[in-house]
Amino acid sequence: MTDTIIAQSTPPGQSALALIRISGPLCKDIAKKALSIPSPTPRFSYLRNYISLDPELGMIDQVVAVFFQAKKSFTGDDTLELSCHGNPLIVEKIIQDLSKRGCRIADPGEFSKRAFLTGKIDLNQAESIIEVISAKSEAELLIANANLLGASSKTFKLLQERILQYQAELEASIDFPEEELEFESNERLLKSLSLLINEMKSLIKNSEKKTELSESLKVLIIGPPNAGKSTLFNSLVGQDRALVSENPGTTRDYLTYQIKIGKYRIELIDTAGIRTTEDETESLGIEKSFELLGNSHLILFVIDGSTPYPTEFYDLIAPSISTKNIVIIENKKDLSIPDYKSKYPEHYSTLSICANSTKDTEEVLDEIDQFFRGEFPTDPSNELLINARHANLLQSALKELSLSREGMKNQIGTEFVLQKINSCRDFIDQIIGDKSNEDVLDKIFNQFCIGK
Amino acid sequence: MTDTIIAQSTPPGQSALALIRISGPLCKDIAKKALSIPSPTPRFSYLRNYISLDPELGMIDQVVAVFFQAKKSFTGDDTLELSCHGNPLIVEKIIQDLSKRGCRIADPGEFSKRAFLTGKIDLNQAESIIEVISAKSEAELLIANANLLGASSKTFKLLQERILQYQAELEASIDFPEEELEFESNERLLKSLSLLINEMKSLIKNSEKKTELSESLKVLIIGPPNAGKSTLFNSLVGQDRALVSENPGTTRDYLTYQIKIGKYRIELIDTAGIRTTEDETESLGIEKSFELLGNSHLILFVIDGSTPYPTEFYDLIAPSISTKNIVIIENKKDLSIPDYKSKYPEHYSTLSICANSTKDTEEVLDEIDQFFRGEFPTDPSNELLINARHANLLQSALKELSLSREGMKNQIGTEFVLQKINSCRDFIDQIIGDKSNEDVLDKIFNQFCIGK
Repeated sequence: MTDTIIAQSTPPGQSALALIRISGPLCKDIAKKALSIPSPTPRFSYLRNYISLDPELGMIDQVVAVFFQAKKSFTGDDTLELSCHGNPLIVEKIIQDLSKRGCRIADPGEFSKRAFLTGKIDLNQAESIIEVISAKSEAELLIANANLLGASSKTFKLLQERILQYQAELEASIDFPEEELEFESNERLLKSLSLLINEMKSLIKNSEKKTELSESLKVLIIGPPNAGKSTLFNSLVGQDRALVSENPGTTRDYLTYQIKIGKYRIELIDTAGIRTTEDETESLGIEKSFELLGNSHLILFVIDGSTPYPTEFYDLIAPSISTKNIVIIENKKDLSIPDYKSKYPEHYSTLSICANSTKDTEEVLDEIDQFFRGEFPTDPSNELLINARHANLLQSALKELSLSREGMKNQIGTEFVLQKINSCRDFIDQIIGDKSNEDVLDKIFNQFCIGK
Repeated sequence: MTDTIIAQSTPPGQSALALIRISGPLCKDIAKKALSIPSPTPRFSYLRNYISLDPELGMIDQVVAVFFQAKKSFTGDDTLELSCHGNPLIVEKIIQDLSKRGCRIADPGEFSKRAFLTGKIDLNQAESIIEVISAKSEAELLIANANLLGASSKTFKLLQERILQYQAELEASIDFPEEELEFESNERLLKSLSLLINEMKSLIKNSEKKTELSESLKVLIIGPPNAGKSTLFNSLVGQDRALVSENPGTTRDYLTYQIKIGKYRIELIDTAGIRTTEDETESLGIEKSFELLGNSHLILFVIDGSTPYPTEFYDLIAPSISTKNIVIIENKKDLSIPDYKSKYPEHYSTLSICANSTKDTEEVLDEIDQFFRGEFPTDPSNELLINARHANLLQSALKELSLSREGMKNQIGTEFVLQKINSCRDFIDQIIGDKSNEDVLDKIFNQFCIGK
């Protein structure tokens, strides 16, 4: 018989309401004895006095109780949810009383773990619950929701089917080894195997993007001194699009701000102006700016458009930037602008702005938004769906599959080839969820909050 | 048409679940359009995807939605409760979306205010909701729950009825002024009026006790140096009965600890040993101990039972203590104990203990519990039910009633007497709740949390 588990599912602290979740075989008994609901209608909200086992205490609180019957509840077991007044003392007294009635405090994620073990959700969906709760931008939320609804599960199941199909074809070609056919089918199998390997590689690559997305995307403002970098920085963070927090840089030479642009959480970085200098402290700051160049997703290269083109500066940074992720911002457009265009590569985006104009700042924000929409599309049909655990397992599966391909090419023997494919399938199985692997399950569910 | 109001009813922060409450005429429309529940069955829990008005965002979260129909909901208006995943971003997005759909953020206590205005609860019940949420001990919780169920409302309604009855009798005696009867009925009326005045006084006095209860009850450990005071202090706070917090004293001479004993929240105070001394700093500490004596509910007077009776000490403190709230604790009972009994007044409680024995410490805790059960009974049928606002209004009502009694005694004229009784009734009306007095209502409901 499983235990009946209890936990507060809302944060601690004084508030209007708090929610306590109970799941397991004692739920009906508790509904009857503590709440006077002898046979609760499932999913129906009852307003009841919660009566303690301690006669001196009597009623602990007026609560709203909802019973969810086994198989149709989140956990798959009988579940009872109580919403009481948001007083930590009341929550403590109710949980104490439930303990006396035979329940025990749930481990973190234990409700979700039960949902997985009873087959209500698969492992990828369980993992996506953590992602839903911890998403810090709309982009992350969109992906997490897609996974909760089964998008990544579907991806992996399709992958597994294809590997199985490949295995079946391979076995068939072994069972009927007609020389003529073998070469042809071998070629075909190798081709489809390579396709599979490439798709797995792309999934793994996308998982890195997902990690970047959850860590926040870096936009670096760089340029020669006095080009108006800090004015632009202040205009960008001062938008209604919401300044989230101020993080003074670890060195005095750059500042970072977290802002939300569209669906993305952006770390905007303002750097010290770059120029050739003899001053040692200034040189250190400039060195730092070059370091940041390498780790940024997008570079806003700010130039004072009213002064001659800063050849010296451009020559300094040009070797450190890729051509893909740069926007040239010609500031001070209200002053006369010399024709720079010919100076930079044609495929660079260019904006002429006035850093303290709201309209122009909006344009820069849109440019940033557009860039990240291209780099990190959040359409749930794309493949930004897999997490680091999946990527690790996919990497191992990929290794086995590559070995199998090598084996085939070099005609090492079908036994070796099939064995590698089996190992590959084992790794994919672990992604989808092996109920018997307690260590893996514990590791996953321990990341959950209490009460989920 | 009233607004539809929204608020998060659970504390902010990442957690398994968060609860959003919506109340007002838009609820059904929201159920239909955002949750695809065209005609919600009241009180039934629906698992639905919350769909944003923003097509790019689409589904914000999978939520459980419960609709409560007007008249049968907490507020008396249509109400919709959503429990979503406990991610602040999700709550923000849903509340933003609900705002776009025409709702507005609720003021603190606005849900309860609506419940009052629609007649679902009276003002005393509304006030008791704050008490339920902020209760810090079982004793406070018991009283708050009794009030939520209507105990204080009942008390005030009875009081009002009696004043009305008194007024009716008075008016009757005026309408039929037969000399003979008048004197007799006047005496009877004066008598019942005095009874009423005394009961009101006792209610006011009890309200002070209630305030003390919510501020925590003080138990002072006092005695000569080296009697074992700190040992007892440590034993008492080290109990399973729960050490709540450590507050180092503002002077180095005493320490306080918050502990729970039975249903009570107790502030236990350990003082410096008291003796006659020439040392200036020590004298200051001793002075402080005398100050504390006056503000304590209970004094534990600890004596080293193995040494001769400390006459000097007893003479020092005797003038400062009442005989009611003291327990003499003869410590070190394992050593031989001289017969002290005859030395202190007969009605003092006495305990012989060993301060580091668990069993003896339990006895001291029981003694403290017993004392407070006598002083602050928590049986809901008693009168510890009224709060400071009630007490202020009762005080004003009492003043009017006393003036009316004076007027009667001195035969100033029935017009004056009746006018005072009317003023008295006005004050009682304010306790029970005058819906038109916006200032009073705002003052009360502004004390509430957001979302209640």
